[in-house]
Amino acid sequence: MSDTRPIGVFDSGLGGLTVVRELQRVMPGEKIVYLGDTARFPYGGRSEEVIGEFAHQAGSFLYKHDIKLMIVACNTASSVGLDSLKRHTREHPVIGVVLPGARASVLRTAEKKIGVIGTRATVRSEAYNRAILKLDSEIRVYGKPCPLFAPLVEEGLLDSEITRMTAQHYLYELVDKGIDCLILGCTHYPLLMEVIQATVGTRVQLIDTALWTAKEAQDILVALDSLNDGGDDGLAGSSFFVTDLTPGFRERAEAFLGAELTSVKRVTIEELTDAAGD
Amino acid sequence: MSDTRPIGVFDSGLGGLTVVRELQRVMPGEKIVYLGDTARFPYGGRSEEVIGEFAHQAGSFLYKHDIKLMIVACNTASSVGLDSLKRHTREHPVIGVVLPGARASVLRTAEKKIGVIGTRATVRSEAYNRAILKLDSEIRVYGKPCPLFAPLVEEGLLDSEITRMTAQHYLYELVDKGIDCLILGCTHYPLLMEVIQATVGTRVQLIDTALWTAKEAQDILVALDSLNDGGDDGLAGSSFFVTDLTPGFRERAEAFLGAELTSVKRVTIEELTDAAGD
Repeated sequence: MSDTRPIGVFDSGLGGLTVVRELQRVMPGEKIVYLGDTARFPYGGRSEEVIGEFAHQAGSFLYKHDIKLMIVACNTASSVGLDSLKRHTREHPVIGVVLPGARASVLRTAEKKIGVIGTRATVRSEAYNRAILKLDSEIRVYGKPCPLFAPLVEEGLLDSEITRMTAQHYLYELVDKGIDCLILGCTHYPLLMEVIQATVGTRVQLIDTALWTAKEAQDILVALDSLNDGGDDGLAGSSFFVTDLTPGFRERAEAFLGAELTSVKRVTIEELTDAAGD
Repeated sequence: MSDTRPIGVFDSGLGGLTVVRELQRVMPGEKIVYLGDTARFPYGGRSEEVIGEFAHQAGSFLYKHDIKLMIVACNTASSVGLDSLKRHTREHPVIGVVLPGARASVLRTAEKKIGVIGTRATVRSEAYNRAILKLDSEIRVYGKPCPLFAPLVEEGLLDSEITRMTAQHYLYELVDKGIDCLILGCTHYPLLMEVIQATVGTRVQLIDTALWTAKEAQDILVALDSLNDGGDDGLAGSSFFVTDLTPGFRERAEAFLGAELTSVKRVTIEELTDAAGD
């Protein structure tokens, strides 16, 4: 049976389009309804309460589009807002990026020492730590918030001395702990892959959560017999919503997506809060 | 006649408390109602449309507190959202930080070359340029967005090699233009005063807009005969509202305010949009 309903993807901004890119690679026939909360990006410094509220509003909006699966592509919202979202979702399946990233890292660490970098809220939540320790209680997890990485990516400083110095400032202490696996716990960080790899050295494996989340989505849809078998042009039938058409958003979005954006519409914060109030 | 009504101060976050600090210095008897939109901070990368909407919501909320004067302490909202706000304010006086900062710089430049640093939205709006050219059309204004400065302050890197290198990256081109005055067009930048001064050299005067905005507020209240003559403990009778009680907000707020915060309450985004809808 072919399930032609779309997959909903929610992110605090445009970085979640890296998850859409991986979804297209593994399941090119799937249509996407994407919501990027660009009017309130970034979430990383906000409280758990507010992140939970924003995630609930985003979920309510996406569920109105008859989605078959919801993916929280934002690491901060996955770490902090997923419970709030699940409380309101009833029968709908929801996945975040934390569990897939945790699983991939547990399979790869030999030293049983894993580093996690992300926003302040992601690291403070210890969501990755809990997920990893459930899989293997002997692993040691070292978290480090890197709040300057996302602004550096937004500024386009992917290969700059400022970025290299910032990476050293954040990452040397993780290297000193002897980690052999580093989870890139923010959708922006894969764009800094080269600087991060050069800083931590080649014996540390970097884990890009977007890829593993797309694979997990595929596993779930296969298990539920809900794949869309209708060809390979899912992107053409996809819809993209943002809460602010920020200047230059199209170029940045296409950098994350690796493809041309088709239709993009603005949805206002009022429409989101109304959706959540229904 | 003593007018005991409070002054409303609106900012995208906590940085606007530097304006409250200066207001207290020049008019210690004035009570303040402060609104910091910490759930949607920072505004600097957002579109004019969204900044205008947020400013309108904030204004609607503050006007419910029977304020006698509204100050937009946020440079981004002053540059981009002030018109939207004025359209909705009818009889209420509103001032931003742009005009006071522009006036102070025009009085100080000998070379008639002024630099302006701020967020992307502030610099793109050219609000400082227009204000300066109205006062003296011979002056040349050079704008430079510095989107990493606010995150560096939020990260506490006030005296770091990363910050010095970032300052050089942004500011050397302004020095090369021959400016002798530099407007710090963001509430966060005065905390980087030492690094900025060391980068541009001592022949460039730095203009802190918070101080000049407080003086302008005083001039207006004197002209309207609306000063509060009731003592010098205005801060004790003041109210502080934020849209998110972000982690560590109290320490950061008190660093900007230079005093202990009395009562702080959270107001939700829904309450703001409701206020604007009335």
